[in-house]
Amino acid sequence: MSFAVVILAAGQGSRMKSRTHKVLHPIADKPMLMHLLDTVEAMGSARNVVVVGQSREQVEGALADRDVAIAVQEEQKGTGHAVLMARDALADYSGPIVVLYGDVPFVGRKTLETMVARLGERDAPGVVVLASSPEDPKAYGRVILGEGDRIAKMVEYKDANEAERACRLCNSGMMAVESASLWGWLDRVGNDNAAGEYYLPDVVMLAQKDGRTPVAVEADPVETTGINSRIELAEAEAQFQQLAREDAMAAGVTLRDPASVFFSHDTKLAPDVIVEPNVVFGPGVSVGAGSRIRAFSHLEGASVGEGCEVGPYARLRPGAVMETGSKVGNFVEMKKATLGEGAKANHLTYLGDATVGAGANIGAGTITCNYDGFGKYKTEIGEGAFIGSNSSLVAPVTIGKGAIVGAGSVITKNVDEDSLGVARGDQRGLAGWAAKFREKMKKE
Amino acid sequence: MSFAVVILAAGQGSRMKSRTHKVLHPIADKPMLMHLLDTVEAMGSARNVVVVGQSREQVEGALADRDVAIAVQEEQKGTGHAVLMARDALADYSGPIVVLYGDVPFVGRKTLETMVARLGERDAPGVVVLASSPEDPKAYGRVILGEGDRIAKMVEYKDANEAERACRLCNSGMMAVESASLWGWLDRVGNDNAAGEYYLPDVVMLAQKDGRTPVAVEADPVETTGINSRIELAEAEAQFQQLAREDAMAAGVTLRDPASVFFSHDTKLAPDVIVEPNVVFGPGVSVGAGSRIRAFSHLEGASVGEGCEVGPYARLRPGAVMETGSKVGNFVEMKKATLGEGAKANHLTYLGDATVGAGANIGAGTITCNYDGFGKYKTEIGEGAFIGSNSSLVAPVTIGKGAIVGAGSVITKNVDEDSLGVARGDQRGLAGWAAKFREKMKKE
Amino acid sequence: MSFAVVILAAGQGSRMKSRTHKVLHPIADKPMLMHLLDTVEAMGSARNVVVVGQSREQVEGALADRDVAIAVQEEQKGTGHAVLMARDALADYSGPIVVLYGDVPFVGRKTLETMVARLGERDAPGVVVLASSPEDPKAYGRVILGEGDRIAKMVEYKDANEAERACRLCNSGMMAVESASLWGWLDRVGNDNAAGEYYLPDVVMLAQKDGRTPVAVEADPVETTGINSRIELAEAEAQFQQLAREDAMAAGVTLRDPASVFFSHDTKLAPDVIVEPNVVFGPGVSVGAGSRIRAFSHLEGASVGEGCEVGPYARLRPGAVMETGSKVGNFVEMKKATLGEGAKANHLTYLGDATVGAGANIGAGTITCNYDGFGKYKTEIGEGAFIGSNSSLVAPVTIGKGAIVGAGSVITKNVDEDSLGVARGDQRGLAGWAAKFREKMKKE
Repeated sequence: MSFAVVILAAGQGSRMKSRTHKVLHPIADKPMLMHLLDTVEAMGSARNVVVVGQSREQVEGALADRDVAIAVQEEQKGTGHAVLMARDALADYSGPIVVLYGDVPFVGRKTLETMVARLGERDAPGVVVLASSPEDPKAYGRVILGEGDRIAKMVEYKDANEAERACRLCNSGMMAVESASLWGWLDRVGNDNAAGEYYLPDVVMLAQKDGRTPVAVEADPVETTGINSRIELAEAEAQFQQLAREDAMAAGVTLRDPASVFFSHDTKLAPDVIVEPNVVFGPGVSVGAGSRIRAFSHLEGASVGEGCEVGPYARLRPGAVMETGSKVGNFVEMKKATLGEGAKANHLTYLGDATVGAGANIGAGTITCNYDGFGKYKTEIGEGAFIGSNSSLVAPVTIGKGAIVGAGSVITKNVDEDSLGVARGDQRGLAGWAAKFREKMKKE
Repeated sequence: MSFAVVILAAGQGSRMKSRTHKVLHPIADKPMLMHLLDTVEAMGSARNVVVVGQSREQVEGALADRDVAIAVQEEQKGTGHAVLMARDALADYSGPIVVLYGDVPFVGRKTLETMVARLGERDAPGVVVLASSPEDPKAYGRVILGEGDRIAKMVEYKDANEAERACRLCNSGMMAVESASLWGWLDRVGNDNAAGEYYLPDVVMLAQKDGRTPVAVEADPVETTGINSRIELAEAEAQFQQLAREDAMAAGVTLRDPASVFFSHDTKLAPDVIVEPNVVFGPGVSVGAGSRIRAFSHLEGASVGEGCEVGPYARLRPGAVMETGSKVGNFVEMKKATLGEGAKANHLTYLGDATVGAGANIGAGTITCNYDGFGKYKTEIGEGAFIGSNSSLVAPVTIGKGAIVGAGSVITKNVDEDSLGVARGDQRGLAGWAAKFREKMKKE
Repeated sequence: MSFAVVILAAGQGSRMKSRTHKVLHPIADKPMLMHLLDTVEAMGSARNVVVVGQSREQVEGALADRDVAIAVQEEQKGTGHAVLMARDALADYSGPIVVLYGDVPFVGRKTLETMVARLGERDAPGVVVLASSPEDPKAYGRVILGEGDRIAKMVEYKDANEAERACRLCNSGMMAVESASLWGWLDRVGNDNAAGEYYLPDVVMLAQKDGRTPVAVEADPVETTGINSRIELAEAEAQFQQLAREDAMAAGVTLRDPASVFFSHDTKLAPDVIVEPNVVFGPGVSVGAGSRIRAFSHLEGASVGEGCEVGPYARLRPGAVMETGSKVGNFVEMKKATLGEGAKANHLTYLGDATVGAGANIGAGTITCNYDGFGKYKTEIGEGAFIGSNSSLVAPVTIGKGAIVGAGSVITKNVDEDSLGVARGDQRGLAGWAAKFREKMKKE
């Protein structure tokens, strides 16, 4: 299926009250606009043009690494005008063009396929409008059907009569149009209306004038919902999360309290993963079968193997790798660190830029001192090593296989295999000192 | 608008099953009674009288710092009797008196203004009853209207006929009454009923007997909901939170999962603040524009500047001040501490009674040792200083600008500007010791 | 009331997509099957037989410590066949036999009592079927009543006519049957149906053929809901939690945000306990009156006395005991440890295998080093002792009453009563070193 896509993203979205452009606000850790682009790229769209305008530098910056053409709409003169801005970028393209909106991110693959396919059917409708029938159709423009899926009339709510308003089929704004006709129709769209804007839906009427028979495809209203405010953003997030939770459970993941588990757009959980209440998955997380993610854990960019235990209160940051059967406990942070098979870091620990060998045990309160204000340095801990509690491992440093570090040590030099390394001050006692101190302090 | 307020708070509230008086249970960290008092004080009420009874010492204690007169109802003889107890405190006051209930905390300013204004209109109704029409009017007393807003009859549910019960307008108990008439009417209220109590609503009938025309003002049922149990307390909290969340989002704050963010009564978030799931705001928090409050953070009495990052798992306690662009990371606690512009404390740290200069970096596991069992002492860390990981800073102590503290140090003396301070034991190694230890332990 | 119970647990439950047998999936930290067994054991059931089949070793393992007979159904030949497998185990038993399902865990005590009692009434119905009327009766088999509670007919949905489908009374599958007749009826149940299975409900028809008058008892649909998928598991968990929360609030516990508090099956909270948002109670927790469990706390196997403060971010693990008025603060973990009256461990601490005397203060960042890779050792801290921040207490070790440990110490030897113990390196300063270091690093 060959088609090109024009995504309108020129309006900043004042109702968001944000310095960030509306289409860059994320849902499940991915900007709305990227949800759309990922959908159409996965379908193999031939060309993607994003029409930018207000705060265009933000949108352009976000698109820097993507295979997207940018078109600029300098002035906000309506959706018809906006699409026209994409003409140059598509000058050498012929085929179906699908017009989407950067703030309507959840239109589905199947729906888009249906639109493009319908455009190519024998009756050559010229335009396929995406419509939906929301519970509450509010003051959306209505799509009045004639025979079959043919559009009899598109009507703005304010111009609609009683019978037309009673029709709940609404125009989503999205449409698929033949490129051969699109630009001509757009040239003919006028701006003789209260706002003085050029409206994209007018191409339907122009197509009809040219003897074509534009049709409507109906989608689940969920796919046509636009996001214009933070409240709508939160609603879209909630909807995404609910689907992600149901998918995970259907695939054999236990979510003890589904509503308190947050997924990212790309979270991968294997069957028999158990997720306790209050867990947040950031981008780039995969968890192997049979692992348990305990309450209050926070994972980003982390790879958790099979049969692992994470948390409660574990924070895995990007580059955290837990191999089979390893364990990270409470108030432990891992970053660019690997915990070998069966290794454990159970309490109050920071493992950064570190490699921990299989079966090693990292005592409570251990800190890898990986930063000197300029560079980051590595800590290597061998298989079966035992790091005593409250130790500081000053990187770069290597603790050999089977070595032991005495509790409370500040280790600045390597510790050999099977050796003991200790670095702490000698203990002194001052008999009766505490009693005298208390007396003195109470007098003060 | 001049008016006085009598708040009834004599009943302990046995359904709460609490040693704490009902009206002192908090919603959004503020006791119910204080919600009411704050509302009427903001309106400029001339006098506030709180009628106390059971557990009066608790209520009096809570009101110690407020400009409130206390009246005591020794015996629980009904609402009419309770209001009468306020007579002395209002002896020299003339004007509208508004009667409120300590366990009905969310009556709104506009509603109260309407009540008082209506009392002063030309037809001089004498009494203005606050009514509402809840979804389920249950067995509440009904307000039967005559012409316009005039009350034809107040009727207890048990005494109401079919037609009267079908009327959903219910008496909230709250009312505004002319002081000139109130005391006289209350003197005439009888207790010839099953409970032997003096009921406040009887003043309506007495006013009518005196040729007056009491009227009703209708409020949203949300404003007239009383709180008598922990379940109702939780429902009121939920309602408050929902409004606070919607207000925040409307003002340009992103709440990724609104239902998991808890506001206090006075939380202030600037536009483009992003709040991740599971965040609790205690009293006295303000957050500047563009800051991100990450998941699982807990803030109380904290001032967060613009462009800061807080958490995940950050705990800011009273007196925590984060200046522009500073960062507090996971498992970090701040109390009476200032983090200068761009300074960072990213991991497993306690900063108490401390000042951290701009651009300073506090390593993982750093602890300010601010307490000796008697007093609290200050730690001062200069601009651009670098505190190595797992250090203990024994206060009072000063780390100069640009100074470096070696990882794992216990710093008891000041470190000069641009100097290095280190305090740790020498490292020793015992070759093969670990291997022998393991053998020995395995034998045992 | 004497009765025996047969619980069917032979099907693994493929829709769970789990390596764990369906009946072993927990709700409120207790496997479904154990919910059922606990219910019938509390009623004093004479015998409990569990019929196992697929993954029987898992179920048998879980039942190892319980007073239960195991019967094996080698092949899955239907519910009638499954019950027949229990015949040997009940060969010498006579009396009512109640058939339950391991994946229908919430049938209530009262319902079971009613079933057994009804079986024993004068009209000797022979079989008592448990039925319910769910909102949506879907394609469940219907129970068509005749006179009173007598069953006229049991009909599968697919065989039911319009009128029968309109009847919402559904067969739950559970039933009580006289043992004297049960085995004979089961012998006569045939498998002449599409699946070739022996269906338990056929005993109703057989009883009728023998001139008996089987009856139905109706239960709340909540009691008859089966759990076949992770989504249904989550729904059952949600239902359990909602009841637990309401019970707690009714008993005088404040849950500021009920939906974010997770109970275990045996959580015990006294009146005037206050639970903040986002708290998880694992098994075996009790909390005394007036204690406050702050946000983000996680308790398992812990005993919290009266007037204690826990959290935020406190983790109490099994064996944690907090005596009256003690306090555990943020990022603190306790395991097999007792905190004496009024003692405090406020920040970033690990207390494992430790006893802390009354009034002692454990400084921020204190770690009990209780593990050497082989055994666990005890730390004893006397009354009124003061442990300086960031100390490591290397167990076994005793800190005497009233003793003080200097901040940052690594304590390996006992500290006497009222003495000071310090163990840390001497502090050295290198003037200007930091400035030189920075210059050097910037050049690199």
